[in-house]
Amino acid sequence: MLLHRSTWPEIEQFLQRSRSIVIPIGSNEQHGPIGLLGTDWMCPEIIANEAQKEADILIGPTFNIGMAQHHLGFAGTISLRPSTFMAAIGDWVRSLAGHGFEKILFLNGHGGNIASIEAAFSELYAEASFAGRPAGFALKLCNWWDLEGVGALANQQFPTGHGMHATPSEIAVTQWAYSDSIKSADYHPQIAPSGPIREALDFRARFPDGRMGSDPAQATPEKGGALVRLAAQSLVKELGAFSRETSPR
Amino acid sequence: MLLHRSTWPEIEQFLQRSRSIVIPIGSNEQHGPIGLLGTDWMCPEIIANEAQKEADILIGPTFNIGMAQHHLGFAGTISLRPSTFMAAIGDWVRSLAGHGFEKILFLNGHGGNIASIEAAFSELYAEASFAGRPAGFALKLCNWWDLEGVGALANQQFPTGHGMHATPSEIAVTQWAYSDSIKSADYHPQIAPSGPIREALDFRARFPDGRMGSDPAQATPEKGGALVRLAAQSLVKELGAFSRETSPR
Amino acid sequence: MLLHRSTWPEIEQFLQRSRSIVIPIGSNEQHGPIGLLGTDWMCPEIIANEAQKEADILIGPTFNIGMAQHHLGFAGTISLRPSTFMAAIGDWVRSLAGHGFEKILFLNGHGGNIASIEAAFSELYAEASFAGRPAGFALKLCNWWDLEGVGALANQQFPTGHGMHATPSEIAVTQWAYSDSIKSADYHPQIAPSGPIREALDFRARFPDGRMGSDPAQATPEKGGALVRLAAQSLVKELGAFSRETSPR
Amino acid sequence: MLLHRSTWPEIEQFLQRSRSIVIPIGSNEQHGPIGLLGTDWMCPEIIANEAQKEADILIGPTFNIGMAQHHLGFAGTISLRPSTFMAAIGDWVRSLAGHGFEKILFLNGHGGNIASIEAAFSELYAEASFAGRPAGFALKLCNWWDLEGVGALANQQFPTGHGMHATPSEIAVTQWAYSDSIKSADYHPQIAPSGPIREALDFRARFPDGRMGSDPAQATPEKGGALVRLAAQSLVKELGAFSRETSPR
Amino acid sequence: MLLHRSTWPEIEQFLQRSRSIVIPIGSNEQHGPIGLLGTDWMCPEIIANEAQKEADILIGPTFNIGMAQHHLGFAGTISLRPSTFMAAIGDWVRSLAGHGFEKILFLNGHGGNIASIEAAFSELYAEASFAGRPAGFALKLCNWWDLEGVGALANQQFPTGHGMHATPSEIAVTQWAYSDSIKSADYHPQIAPSGPIREALDFRARFPDGRMGSDPAQATPEKGGALVRLAAQSLVKELGAFSRETSPR
Amino acid sequence: MLLHRSTWPEIEQFLQRSRSIVIPIGSNEQHGPIGLLGTDWMCPEIIANEAQKEADILIGPTFNIGMAQHHLGFAGTISLRPSTFMAAIGDWVRSLAGHGFEKILFLNGHGGNIASIEAAFSELYAEASFAGRPAGFALKLCNWWDLEGVGALANQQFPTGHGMHATPSEIAVTQWAYSDSIKSADYHPQIAPSGPIREALDFRARFPDGRMGSDPAQATPEKGGALVRLAAQSLVKELGAFSRETSPR
Repeated sequence: MLLHRSTWPEIEQFLQRSRSIVIPIGSNEQHGPIGLLGTDWMCPEIIANEAQKEADILIGPTFNIGMAQHHLGFAGTISLRPSTFMAAIGDWVRSLAGHGFEKILFLNGHGGNIASIEAAFSELYAEASFAGRPAGFALKLCNWWDLEGVGALANQQFPTGHGMHATPSEIAVTQWAYSDSIKSADYHPQIAPSGPIREALDFRARFPDGRMGSDPAQATPEKGGALVRLAAQSLVKELGAFSRETSPR
Repeated sequence: MLLHRSTWPEIEQFLQRSRSIVIPIGSNEQHGPIGLLGTDWMCPEIIANEAQKEADILIGPTFNIGMAQHHLGFAGTISLRPSTFMAAIGDWVRSLAGHGFEKILFLNGHGGNIASIEAAFSELYAEASFAGRPAGFALKLCNWWDLEGVGALANQQFPTGHGMHATPSEIAVTQWAYSDSIKSADYHPQIAPSGPIREALDFRARFPDGRMGSDPAQATPEKGGALVRLAAQSLVKELGAFSRETSPR
Repeated sequence: MLLHRSTWPEIEQFLQRSRSIVIPIGSNEQHGPIGLLGTDWMCPEIIANEAQKEADILIGPTFNIGMAQHHLGFAGTISLRPSTFMAAIGDWVRSLAGHGFEKILFLNGHGGNIASIEAAFSELYAEASFAGRPAGFALKLCNWWDLEGVGALANQQFPTGHGMHATPSEIAVTQWAYSDSIKSADYHPQIAPSGPIREALDFRARFPDGRMGSDPAQATPEKGGALVRLAAQSLVKELGAFSRETSPR
Repeated sequence: MLLHRSTWPEIEQFLQRSRSIVIPIGSNEQHGPIGLLGTDWMCPEIIANEAQKEADILIGPTFNIGMAQHHLGFAGTISLRPSTFMAAIGDWVRSLAGHGFEKILFLNGHGGNIASIEAAFSELYAEASFAGRPAGFALKLCNWWDLEGVGALANQQFPTGHGMHATPSEIAVTQWAYSDSIKSADYHPQIAPSGPIREALDFRARFPDGRMGSDPAQATPEKGGALVRLAAQSLVKELGAFSRETSPR
Repeated sequence: MLLHRSTWPEIEQFLQRSRSIVIPIGSNEQHGPIGLLGTDWMCPEIIANEAQKEADILIGPTFNIGMAQHHLGFAGTISLRPSTFMAAIGDWVRSLAGHGFEKILFLNGHGGNIASIEAAFSELYAEASFAGRPAGFALKLCNWWDLEGVGALANQQFPTGHGMHATPSEIAVTQWAYSDSIKSADYHPQIAPSGPIREALDFRARFPDGRMGSDPAQATPEKGGALVRLAAQSLVKELGAFSRETSPR
Repeated sequence: MLLHRSTWPEIEQFLQRSRSIVIPIGSNEQHGPIGLLGTDWMCPEIIANEAQKEADILIGPTFNIGMAQHHLGFAGTISLRPSTFMAAIGDWVRSLAGHGFEKILFLNGHGGNIASIEAAFSELYAEASFAGRPAGFALKLCNWWDLEGVGALANQQFPTGHGMHATPSEIAVTQWAYSDSIKSADYHPQIAPSGPIREALDFRARFPDGRMGSDPAQATPEKGGALVRLAAQSLVKELGAFSRETSPR
C-alpha cells in the first residue's frame, strides 16, 4: 500500500491493523557516466514498491534529496546540508508519530546519508531523553544493500568492480525499473579508483568521472530484477521483525 | 528531459543550451474522502512530466513534502515546519545555482506552500543583498492552477463546488494520471464549508472530512487530462518567457 | 489604549474585558525620493493610534523592522532576514499569548512582509499541530490598504500612478501625521517603472530612484487624513469581527 | 536627524559627512505599579531625540523589544529570547554596515539587555574573526544611566530608593516626555525588595508588584527633564569620541 | 568529589545529600608571551579541584572552550561563537537538571565568557518563562577572581601591571599547578596597552603580543598557590550560600 | 606537545614544521557499576597524552562532552544534542583551520559520537562544496579501539564479555591512568544484555545497570597500560600517514 496513493480514511484504517511504515530515502546525485542522477532514491523506492505488492505493508512517499555535498562538483547533484537533512527527517518523523506510527523504517539508498540519518534519529530521541519521557516511536535505518541476502547476491553477480559509488548493482536496479533510461559509456580505467571523501572539489579531482571503485558496465536489467525481488522479500521480513519488537518498559 | 533520469554529463550538456529548470513542489497531505494524500505533489509532477515531452525543458525531482501543518490532524499528512521547508528550499537552490542554473521555476501544487516558498526566496536573495553582490539566479513561483488558461478551464469544468482544498480539478488531474487509484465517497454536505486556516485541531473541527469549499465528486479523468494538457503547454510558455528575461544590471 | 503607555495592572484589567490586541507592523526602508524611511511602520502606527482614540481597543508597540532585503541597496533601509523576522514574531506572539491574548491582529504596512508574516503564523500554529494540542490563540494579518473601503478611497484619490511602492497613499498618510517632514522632488519618469522583486542590486538597477510604479507627487496631507480616518474606523470593525469569532472546537 | 523621518537620498548625503549612528534600544516590560510598559525603550528614544536637536547626529528607529524573559509573569511584557534578540541585532548591524556606517552606538534602556547585546556584538565580530578579515564596523553599547554625569545626578535626585528596576529616574524621564501618561499608586513597602533574577514565576514571587529595590513615588517630570537634558549632552560627547576613534590597523 | 572520576551510582548517592554542582568553565586562548593557551580553563579547574579536597562538594568536567573570537588572530586559540556556546551550555544544564541538580554554579575563568554565559542562562530561564512554569533549577556565574578576598589578594600581590588579559594572577595559578610548564619572555613595553575589544584582526593590531594592560613577569608559583587556596575556600562558602538559598515560590 | 600547555608563539613555531593536530573527543556518560563517568573522554586523552611523549605531535584540549542522549537516564551523564555537538565541532575546526592546521584528527572515545562527528565533518565540507571552493583542511575520525592492533589486543585480553558499552578495555585504560579511582561491584548477570539504542528511558529499561554486553570485572590497570602503549604507537603512525597524504587538486 502506497501512502500517497491512499486517502486519509484509508490510512486511518491501516493504523487499526499496523503501526509500521517504510520511508524510502536516498539522494539525487551524480552516478558516473551511465548512472542516473536519481539512482539513490529510485532504488529504495523501486524495492519498497515491489515489496508492498506482496505484503500488507505501508510505503510512504520517497525522501529524494539527501546528503550529497561531495558530489556537488558534478552537474545535477542536489544536496541538503546535514543540518537541513536532519531537520527535515525530524519533521517527517514527528508528522508520522503524531498519527500513531510507532515503527518507522527508513529504507536507505545512499551511503553518504547514513551518518546524518543516525544523527537525526539521535536528535529526535534526545527530545524525549532530555524531557525524561518515552519517545513513543522506534526508528530503524536499513540500507537496501544490507537487506538479508542482497550483499551476497551482489557479490556473486559482480565479483570484481562492484566498488562504492555508481556500483553495477544499483545501476542494474534502475535499469530493471526504467528500461527506457539505460545509458552506456566507455570507462578509463575500467574500474574506478578509491579514496577518502571530502569536499566537492577534492572529490572531483580524485574521481574524475564520478565513480568510486566501480565498473558499472557489468549492470544488466536482469541482474537488477533479481536484486529487487530478493530485496523486496527481505524488506518484508525485516519490517515484520521490527514490527513485532516490543519495548522493555 | 527529467534530471533524475539523466546522467551528469547529460546535464552538463543541457547547461550549454539552457540555464533554466523546473522543480515540481507540493505537499503530502489529506485531500478529503477521495483525494490522494500525494495529490499536491503529484499534480505539478504530472504536468511538468507532460510538458517535457513536448519541449526541450529540464524537470528536476519533485519536492514532495511542503508546509501542511494545518492538515496534521488527518492520518497520512506529512509536513515540514516553514523554517525547515525554507532551509531545504535554500539547499536545493544553492545546489542548482552552483551548477549554473540561473532561472529556477518552482511549479507549485499547494496553496499552503506559497508564503513559505516566497519567504525562502527572500531568505536566499537576502544573502546576496546583505553581501552587496548579485544573487546569480532568479527564482519564480508558479502555482499550476494559475498557469495561463487553467483557471478559466477549471471554472468552466466546475462552475460550482470547486472550493479551496480537495478541489475537483486537482483530483481530476490525479485520476487522469493514476486511473487505478480512483476512489469514491458520499459527501455531507455536498459542498464543504469554508473558513480560516489555523492549527490542526481547529482545522479538523471546522472541516471534518478535510475538504474546504469543494465537491470532489465532479472530478473525472477526462477533465483532468484536459487540465494537464493545457497546463503543460502554458508551463512551456511561462518557462520560455522567464528564460528570455534579462537582468537590468 | 496604548499598551506601552499603560502599566501592567492596567493591562491585567483590560484582559478582563477583552482578549484582543493590535500590533502595528511594518518596515524601515527607502520610499523613493520623498517618502520617509519609516513610512511602512508609521502608517499602521498612525492608523492604530487614531483607532484607539475612538474605541476601547488595545494597541501594542510597533514592530518597526520587517523584511526589506530588496531595498538594502538604498541608504537607510534596515531589514531582517525572513528567518529572523519569523523568530521575532514568534516571541512577540508567545509573550502576548502567555498573558491571555487570544486574538492578535497584525496591522501591516509593508507588502514585502506578507509572506514572512504568514510563514511565521504557520510556524507558530505548527508547534500546536505537531503536539496535537490547541494553539490557544488566533492570528490575523491585515494590510492597512486592504481595510474596508481604503482601497476604493485610494483609487479615487489616485486613479493613476498609485503603483506598488512609495505610493502616494502611504506618503500622504505620513504627511498628515508628520507635517514637518514633508519633502519634494522632481520625478523622471513621473510614474516609475514596474517589474519583479529580487535581490538588492537587481532592485536598484530596475528602480533607480526606489519607486515602483508610483507617482508620489500626488500625495497631500489632506488625502492622508481621509485615508487615516477611514482606515481607523475599518480597523475597529475588523477587530470587532475577529474578536467575536469563536472556534468550532 | 531622525533616520525614519528622512529619505534615502538624505541619508546618502549624511554618510558623506559622518559614518556614525545611534540606535535607541530597550525593552517593553512591566515597570511596577506606575511605570509605563514602554519605559525602557522610551527613555533612550527620548534622550536620543533630544540630542539630535542640538547636534548633527543621526538617530535610527527604536529597537523596542528586548530581553525581558523574567518579566513575562506580568501582563503586557513582550520579550525576545536572547537568541532571537541577537539574530535581530545582527541583521540591524549588517543592514547599517552595508550602507557604510562604521560606528554604531546602541543607546540602551534596559539592564537585562546588556549580556545579550554584548553577545550579539561578539557574534557579529566572530564572523570577521573566523574569516580572518576586518569587520568594517565598530559597535558600542551605552546605557543611558551610565552617560557622563547622569548617574551622579540621579544619585543626587534620589539618594535612597533608586533601586534596580522601575526606578524613579527612568519613570521621571517618561513623565517628562509623556505628561499625559503619569500614574500614581500606593507602595507596600515603600522601597521594594532586592534579589536575584531568574525565570518569570520566580521573579513575580520575589517582586510581587514588579519593582526591584525602588521607590518610584519620588519621580517628577522636572527631575526627568533634567536627566534628559544632561543625558542628551553626554550622548553627543560620547558619540563624538566614538566617531573620532581610529583603528590601529 | 569529581563527577568524571565517579560512577553513576555514586552520583545518584550524592544527589541524596546535595543538589548542587560546580562546573569549571573557561576558554582556550592565547595568553601572551608566557601564558598557557589553557590558562582560562585551567584556573577554575585547579581551584575547583582544590576545593573538593576540603569539602563534600561535586565538581563536573571542565567546559574548556568558550567565547574567544577576539583572540583568533593568535595561533592555538579555539573559540565557539556565542550562539554555539549558549547552545552547549543549554545542553549541559538540561542534562544536569534532568538528574535533579537544582543549583548549578559555573566557576568562570574568562572575562570574555561572561556576556554569553549570562545570555545562555536567560535563554534557559526563558523556556520556563514562556511556558509559565518553574525552571526547576537556579544558575549562578562566579568568576574566580571575584570570589571573596581573591581580588584583594591579587591587588596586594600585583599593585601595578595586573591588567585585563594574561594577568600575572592567572599565570601564577597555572604556574603553581603545572610547574613543568613555566615559560619566560622579555616584554616591550613591560606593561601592555589597553583598549576596546573587537574582531580578531583589530585585537592583534592593538595588542601585538596578546597581553592587555598586564605585566606577567610578576607571576610566581607561590603567589599562585596562595590565590588557589583562598579561592578554593571562598568557592566552598559561595556554593554553601547558593545551596542554602530557597525560592520564594 | 600539548596545545593548552603551550604559548601562542610556541604553536606558531610548531606550525612551521607541521600542519597536523590531534583532538581527543569523547563523552561524559555513565559506564555501568564501576566505569567512571569520564571514561570516554579520558581514554583518548590518556592515549594522546602518551603518544606526544614519544613523538613531536600536537595534542589539543579534550572535547569532553559528546552525544550521549541515551545515557541521560543515569545520573552524571552530560550530553549535547547532535545539532549542538555539530555546531561546536564546526567552531573548533574553523578555529584550527584559521591558524593553518590542514590535517585535524579527532581521536574518539565514544561509539555514540561517530554519526554526529561524521555529520559535522560533512557540514563543514559542505560550506566549501556549496561555495565551489577548496575546504583548506582534511578531517579524520579515529576511534581509539580501531587503531592498528588495538582491537586484536583487546580481543586477546577479553575473549568474552568485552561487549559494546562499559567494556573492560576502556575501564582498564582509566584504571591504568587513575589508579586511585578504581571501583568494584557485583554483576547480575556477569555479562550484560545487548539490544538496540533508543531514547534514555528505553535504554535504562533494557540495560538496568548501564552496561551493554560487557563484563567490566575483567579490567586491570596492567591490561590498560598495554592498551595505552599500543594505541599511542598506532596513533603516531596513523597521524603520520594522514599528515603525508596529499590532495589530488
